[in-house]
Amino acid sequence: MFAAPMIPAFYPPRRILMGPGPSDVHPQVLAAQAKPIIGHLDPLFVSMMDELKQLLQYAFQTRNEMTLAISAPGSAGMEACFVNLVEAGDKVIVCRNGVFGERMRQNVERCGGIAVTVDFKWGEPVQPAAVEALLKDHPDARFLAFVHAETSTGALSDAKALCALAKRYGCLTIVDAVTSLGGVELRVDEWGIDAIYSGSQKCLSCVPGLSPISFSAAAVAKITARTTPVQSWFLDQSLVMAYWSGGAKRAYHHTAPVNALYALHESLRLLAAEGLENAWARHQAMHQELRVGLEQLGIAFVVEEPYRLPQLNAIYIPQGIDDAKVRATLLNEFNLEIGAGLGELAGKAWRIGLMGFGARRENIALCLHALRQLLN
Amino acid sequence: MFAAPMIPAFYPPRRILMGPGPSDVHPQVLAAQAKPIIGHLDPLFVSMMDELKQLLQYAFQTRNEMTLAISAPGSAGMEACFVNLVEAGDKVIVCRNGVFGERMRQNVERCGGIAVTVDFKWGEPVQPAAVEALLKDHPDARFLAFVHAETSTGALSDAKALCALAKRYGCLTIVDAVTSLGGVELRVDEWGIDAIYSGSQKCLSCVPGLSPISFSAAAVAKITARTTPVQSWFLDQSLVMAYWSGGAKRAYHHTAPVNALYALHESLRLLAAEGLENAWARHQAMHQELRVGLEQLGIAFVVEEPYRLPQLNAIYIPQGIDDAKVRATLLNEFNLEIGAGLGELAGKAWRIGLMGFGARRENIALCLHALRQLLN
Repeated sequence: MFAAPMIPAFYPPRRILMGPGPSDVHPQVLAAQAKPIIGHLDPLFVSMMDELKQLLQYAFQTRNEMTLAISAPGSAGMEACFVNLVEAGDKVIVCRNGVFGERMRQNVERCGGIAVTVDFKWGEPVQPAAVEALLKDHPDARFLAFVHAETSTGALSDAKALCALAKRYGCLTIVDAVTSLGGVELRVDEWGIDAIYSGSQKCLSCVPGLSPISFSAAAVAKITARTTPVQSWFLDQSLVMAYWSGGAKRAYHHTAPVNALYALHESLRLLAAEGLENAWARHQAMHQELRVGLEQLGIAFVVEEPYRLPQLNAIYIPQGIDDAKVRATLLNEFNLEIGAGLGELAGKAWRIGLMGFGARRENIALCLHALRQLLN
Repeated sequence: MFAAPMIPAFYPPRRILMGPGPSDVHPQVLAAQAKPIIGHLDPLFVSMMDELKQLLQYAFQTRNEMTLAISAPGSAGMEACFVNLVEAGDKVIVCRNGVFGERMRQNVERCGGIAVTVDFKWGEPVQPAAVEALLKDHPDARFLAFVHAETSTGALSDAKALCALAKRYGCLTIVDAVTSLGGVELRVDEWGIDAIYSGSQKCLSCVPGLSPISFSAAAVAKITARTTPVQSWFLDQSLVMAYWSGGAKRAYHHTAPVNALYALHESLRLLAAEGLENAWARHQAMHQELRVGLEQLGIAFVVEEPYRLPQLNAIYIPQGIDDAKVRATLLNEFNLEIGAGLGELAGKAWRIGLMGFGARRENIALCLHALRQLLN
């Protein structure tokens, strides 16, 4: 026998999370998650999942039947969209203006699809004109894929305009809403989004580990018409849906993460109680407060004003400032986490999140006060 | 806008879970999970993950470097093993003696592998002689895949003998330990298991949603020698490992399910404190108590004694008893969940779990008392 390691209990400190996610979890959500476990086929759990579906439909503003939470993080939600929809040889136009557009391209290729990429500068939104040019050049494209809110740069793209374009050229849309859901305007049915995925750990203020997704009737029809099996058994939506929508007859697929789903149920209830439009307005109002304070410190934003995400503020690190040292001091002396730059922005930018429960004045006060001390 | 649904808070009842999993979660584990969230790249979280790896190595009895928890349920752990190891055209001998062997076959085929199946009656263990015959017939087989503890039937197979056989014929082994880990003897290094996956929600008494896995050096070499990319981005171990083993330099892959990992850390600490061998002995002792009581009620086991899993007791439903009615009464009047039969055993058998924290005398007393009332 290998001996048992002697490991003490883990006591995390109380941090304030103002990075790119996970964001602060609402106390009611943490409490919901700690409720006693029941079976994943218990009739009471089945009812709870039915409620969860209604709450997700509200958050996405959709009546899509295929609306549920993947039992894994947002990157699995992304993969769920691509593996179910994209078959070998399908052409997908992929917009890249940060890390997550590139991850979409990798997903397309791992499904055997053909990715046609269109690039935009980091910090810029996806430009509909450039996308339209590509749609014209590729009349055989089946999908347009883009990121609504780029977590790596803080840029918001015009999902409504891009979806309208895609429809005009006969493409289905696959939209990354990991950081946008609950934080900025998003209307799945009105905008005609066909497949969308998000994450629990951003503007929903839930624990990380779940990925809300929704597929339109057209997307479901594409899945139904597949001639090859979905390469992932775990993410095969025809199997997952038999579990989520079977009612009393639901078919066992995998063991649902029961306690995490309690947490998502509670976080979506909080969103419904606040009202989506109020939540969007709150994110915008808190962003404006943070913006004013940062500008007083002489800090510049990476993204031009019309495209700035209120929930993810990418800012340039001032000249002469030690990136890692400031972030470490914020963490160790103020228990405040802000995000490092990612990819092209590593070492050049910070990312300050104002997400969900974290989009609150107390947090802005702490962040501005601490930065004022450390940058002078 | 679609209006917000009015959904009340969800208050689950206090159930006793004696089904096939999820099992009762230890109170300390629920409490650990409810601790405040910190960032998934926080140095304190990184240290916690290093400890988690040591604890998983102990539970698996391995020194494998590639030992970690997949951020998704056991079926994703299964898929992680197959998609990383099996390349198009690779031949895999798959043993089927219940639901999960069949799921392995589907995984092989979805990776483009060639599955050669060998079938055993439901309730029987995998027979090494039949496997050896197949290994002889298929000298080009690269893998032997089997389920250590079949959750659908309650049968234990001789993993040690099967792995020794596989080695003799030059095959790597892929072992399903979803229900076995922590409940019965399992020694990854000593037995020469190459790839193994489990689940958090069985004998570890943790919340569902995580899948501990471990790959031997030979398995890692097979992955490293791949000429094609792993079809799943989310489960690609070369990417996942850069996150789990990068230390201070860990590369962002996906957002770890922070609170669920707190829970796994605590549940593995409890296992280490009890000692693996003590935990195995406790499962066996509790099984014997349950067995005596069930036999007094005239109930017969599905599996022959030498192959019975102590943690999952598959028993025949007595003649003339209404399966669904008894299970509903147990649930509604005793708050006790036992498992229905699955697949070939649906309507014919019940599955009584004694897993982890649930393998305790109080639960056996409740179960036997309630069955005595309902079956007479």
